[in-house]
Amino acid sequence: MGIVLGANQYGKAENRVVRIYRDSPRHEIRDINVSTALRGDFSRAHTHGDQADVLPTDTQKQTAYAFAKEKGLQSIEDYGLALAQHFVDDVEPVQAARVEVEEFAWERAVIDGAEHDHTWIRRGQEVRTASVTVEGSGDDQQVWVTGGLKDMVILKSTGSEFAGFLSDPYTVLQPTNDRVMATSLTAKWRFSQHTDVDWEATYAGVKQLLVQQFAEVHSLALQQTLYEMGRAVLETYGFVAEIRFSAPNKHHFVYDLSPFGLDNPNEVFHADDRPYGLIQATVTRDDAPDAGPAWYAYSGLV
Amino acid sequence: MGIVLGANQYGKAENRVVRIYRDSPRHEIRDINVSTALRGDFSRAHTHGDQADVLPTDTQKQTAYAFAKEKGLQSIEDYGLALAQHFVDDVEPVQAARVEVEEFAWERAVIDGAEHDHTWIRRGQEVRTASVTVEGSGDDQQVWVTGGLKDMVILKSTGSEFAGFLSDPYTVLQPTNDRVMATSLTAKWRFSQHTDVDWEATYAGVKQLLVQQFAEVHSLALQQTLYEMGRAVLETYGFVAEIRFSAPNKHHFVYDLSPFGLDNPNEVFHADDRPYGLIQATVTRDDAPDAGPAWYAYSGLV
Amino acid sequence: MGIVLGANQYGKAENRVVRIYRDSPRHEIRDINVSTALRGDFSRAHTHGDQADVLPTDTQKQTAYAFAKEKGLQSIEDYGLALAQHFVDDVEPVQAARVEVEEFAWERAVIDGAEHDHTWIRRGQEVRTASVTVEGSGDDQQVWVTGGLKDMVILKSTGSEFAGFLSDPYTVLQPTNDRVMATSLTAKWRFSQHTDVDWEATYAGVKQLLVQQFAEVHSLALQQTLYEMGRAVLETYGFVAEIRFSAPNKHHFVYDLSPFGLDNPNEVFHADDRPYGLIQATVTRDDAPDAGPAWYAYSGLV
Amino acid sequence: MGIVLGANQYGKAENRVVRIYRDSPRHEIRDINVSTALRGDFSRAHTHGDQADVLPTDTQKQTAYAFAKEKGLQSIEDYGLALAQHFVDDVEPVQAARVEVEEFAWERAVIDGAEHDHTWIRRGQEVRTASVTVEGSGDDQQVWVTGGLKDMVILKSTGSEFAGFLSDPYTVLQPTNDRVMATSLTAKWRFSQHTDVDWEATYAGVKQLLVQQFAEVHSLALQQTLYEMGRAVLETYGFVAEIRFSAPNKHHFVYDLSPFGLDNPNEVFHADDRPYGLIQATVTRDDAPDAGPAWYAYSGLV
Repeated sequence: MGIVLGANQYGKAENRVVRIYRDSPRHEIRDINVSTALRGDFSRAHTHGDQADVLPTDTQKQTAYAFAKEKGLQSIEDYGLALAQHFVDDVEPVQAARVEVEEFAWERAVIDGAEHDHTWIRRGQEVRTASVTVEGSGDDQQVWVTGGLKDMVILKSTGSEFAGFLSDPYTVLQPTNDRVMATSLTAKWRFSQHTDVDWEATYAGVKQLLVQQFAEVHSLALQQTLYEMGRAVLETYGFVAEIRFSAPNKHHFVYDLSPFGLDNPNEVFHADDRPYGLIQATVTRDDAPDAGPAWYAYSGLV
Repeated sequence: MGIVLGANQYGKAENRVVRIYRDSPRHEIRDINVSTALRGDFSRAHTHGDQADVLPTDTQKQTAYAFAKEKGLQSIEDYGLALAQHFVDDVEPVQAARVEVEEFAWERAVIDGAEHDHTWIRRGQEVRTASVTVEGSGDDQQVWVTGGLKDMVILKSTGSEFAGFLSDPYTVLQPTNDRVMATSLTAKWRFSQHTDVDWEATYAGVKQLLVQQFAEVHSLALQQTLYEMGRAVLETYGFVAEIRFSAPNKHHFVYDLSPFGLDNPNEVFHADDRPYGLIQATVTRDDAPDAGPAWYAYSGLV
Repeated sequence: MGIVLGANQYGKAENRVVRIYRDSPRHEIRDINVSTALRGDFSRAHTHGDQADVLPTDTQKQTAYAFAKEKGLQSIEDYGLALAQHFVDDVEPVQAARVEVEEFAWERAVIDGAEHDHTWIRRGQEVRTASVTVEGSGDDQQVWVTGGLKDMVILKSTGSEFAGFLSDPYTVLQPTNDRVMATSLTAKWRFSQHTDVDWEATYAGVKQLLVQQFAEVHSLALQQTLYEMGRAVLETYGFVAEIRFSAPNKHHFVYDLSPFGLDNPNEVFHADDRPYGLIQATVTRDDAPDAGPAWYAYSGLV
Repeated sequence: MGIVLGANQYGKAENRVVRIYRDSPRHEIRDINVSTALRGDFSRAHTHGDQADVLPTDTQKQTAYAFAKEKGLQSIEDYGLALAQHFVDDVEPVQAARVEVEEFAWERAVIDGAEHDHTWIRRGQEVRTASVTVEGSGDDQQVWVTGGLKDMVILKSTGSEFAGFLSDPYTVLQPTNDRVMATSLTAKWRFSQHTDVDWEATYAGVKQLLVQQFAEVHSLALQQTLYEMGRAVLETYGFVAEIRFSAPNKHHFVYDLSPFGLDNPNEVFHADDRPYGLIQATVTRDDAPDAGPAWYAYSGLV
């Protein structure tokens, strides 16, 4: 029997980089949380404590901040690509790199109807996300990019049903033909190419499609809504290979006001915290290129 | 030597009430977190375990949900007033009541340029707050109302200095004449009246003044910016007696890129978590009516 | 009408200081989160942006770390006293200082039955707290010290009732003579002296009394349990002037298993998150010295 | 081009079940957070909104609470097995089920040296975890079980180095031969069998081995410490196939006290929040049975 090192990676997590562009009086801001991880044969660090092949996580941090200046920070996908390719191309023992980025959006303060040049309020709505995975060198190098969003809380107060479901002896739920449906949406879409993509326009467009489908699809189940969201994205963006959703069902329970002689026709709800339904689904092209390590997340080993 | 009961209160915290108005196809939504506390002579519950004068916290919860239907939930100040006055007026042992409300804003989904009738995305920006304190009965009843906001993260990338400060042997900070200034603002304003106030317009107006002053005041210190914010609010709203601020200085440290041969003229920053400066200040009228228990917070005893 | 500056303070919050004593092979560790605030006449910083009297929050941070070496960090009360008195005594414009400390406990790793010299596991149980307020100089200087704990989650599975309470039209709660009672306790006790106190022994003793009363008092209400806790502390420690409690009622609802033909005699519970009852109470000596600013918390202005 | 449904699952997350055993005056308590997910061919729910094959997440919740009574809640692995097998065996469309459990430990209150019968204080130290995945029916049924822990914060104040690492132009870190090493450990171990395991003894034994290795291994890198932890577990427990670690490097930076004329030989540290190094590694047997879906986490699709 032998005991051996299995899958492993290491990196610096949650570098909070803020980049201000101030070349003109109208400044621009980019505010991100970037995590990097390196993969390769680092077995001697594990089995012998030998760091000769280990680029410190501190160096990864320095690089993340330096690249915000050297390479710029316009689209998080491009920034992630620059970082990941640098680690793989320039650091000999690194065989693959994973970079994940969260971006926090800011909107300009509006004063007397005009956008301010250098003052912003943080939009709290959704967090934009991206991941880049680069493997191999030279002509064999492969690249996977995903875009995404998380924490987009969206709700519709009608146009949602849940009925006709399977029953068993533990089923007490009553069917409903009109309910509040709400979720805090996480969506990630995988690109089938990583050049010639307008990352900014694509992000805005995908987000808008997700919102539109949520609003306009008469929902028989959250599953159905997610599928229609995904279908709309894939139909619109030929370079999106697949899209994945994680959608907690943020339950809004109709409050029982009958003890007080009050009707409650879907007007007063208790927004509950836990437990919550969780629906996860993928919508994909049947000829999507192989996902490879695209979904092997930064913190995904455990 | 005697051991006695001192200040005390009890209530139900964090009732997550959501109210949908659906009288027309264009629904409206109000989403709040409401906490109630009762004050009075409940000493026998403490010293003898006798609950005869104790209205259960569960009853307070039921009332909070019921009132969203009975009294409606349009402005959180009015809803809070209705709740607090009910407890004091209708429950005999209650001598005073404190109600605190947080409101989470939603914005309508926009589809093809039009606002959707029954779909919203939660705005994450700031949380609106209000408190109502009612004491006494009949002609002696007194009422205090505060409005407020919290978690409004606002940043300016220039127009802020910090220099000319006091030094001592532990001072290593260098003065700066151009820095990023950012805070996650909490502000609470106390009304000198509780009728004939347009709560919605006042909230929007105060928020706009805070943003405008933050943007336009050339800041020599966060203290100065807060003061100018407060002054603008008091000058504009005659029925605001005072305004209080708690402003963490969300430090954005210029990242040292010199080891890599890179200039960094206020372009790349590290957004640090802890520790943070915390500036707290009040701007008040010199003839403001007595604050009474207005600032004695729901969770303020400890 | 005049607009003026009201109450204000400023400081550095949440300095995460860790102190290792390594004078012998058996190391000791102290792990704290310390926040400092200065009070005085800093009006020109607010009204004119003039920092001449303002000791930077960065300096307060440096001092907090330096004092962990210079003054040592054995008892958080003594460390807080050293810091607060330094600011008031040595920094001319400072008229009062507030220092609050949280301490995170570690327990030694036990290997083959023996405590390890330099390895610890963080105890997650409760967080110890202290506050120090110093006002004035020379013979007029006054000092207030509180000790405390927070986040101590404690539960009893029987020996708790809630019955005989007041009813109104919104009351649907049923009385119970046997329930689970649980809370996440916050307690703060105010010392009537700040010298000749064995801080460590007092902390351990107060905590033990709180636990014992929670366990042994047959509870007719959480209010009663808190009162008995407080009484025990005041009877035991003559130098404790008062003790304050904030006790969320962490509801454990008996789960309805009757649809499945199952009895549930207080065996299976749902531990709910929100809303929760919140009981706050003070137990005090009738001749307690004036609390002055002892309860004016670090973040208490708003 | 076809657009199709890809990987999907659905369930009820974070059921907070508390089970009290009260058959004798000395009660026992189990406090868990359990999440369930079902897998199978639920495509018509996605593509047509047809729920005929969908057992509601509410039913999964009811089952989780009911099983705490029907099947009992002694070891979370057994409870998870009962739940997962029930869903696969008894609900026709379900082809696979995933159950994840977190367990929060309580320790008995000690009064006058004796453990109390029905009062506990929640231990905050680590959270115990388990996952069960069941696939297929009858003789083809396969089962995977993992145990684990998370949030165990462990620190050593000496006996840790980091030197001899790879350098590149972005490397500024200085090597050190004596540092504080701390992590908030997540570990998950996969069992190669799911019967005839003493889950309780194994959990206690694995945890103790992890602590012991952390304490006793002179660490040249966190990677090395993790590997030695894993090796010790695999050498001791023949039925553990592999163990996985995720270990954030909780940085304790030596504070620079030299501006104040103070030495700081590893005595005063700043415990930083972000960014942090993150080391992830697997230690495995070279003949470990196939992991199948064992590591396909409950929330692992996105």
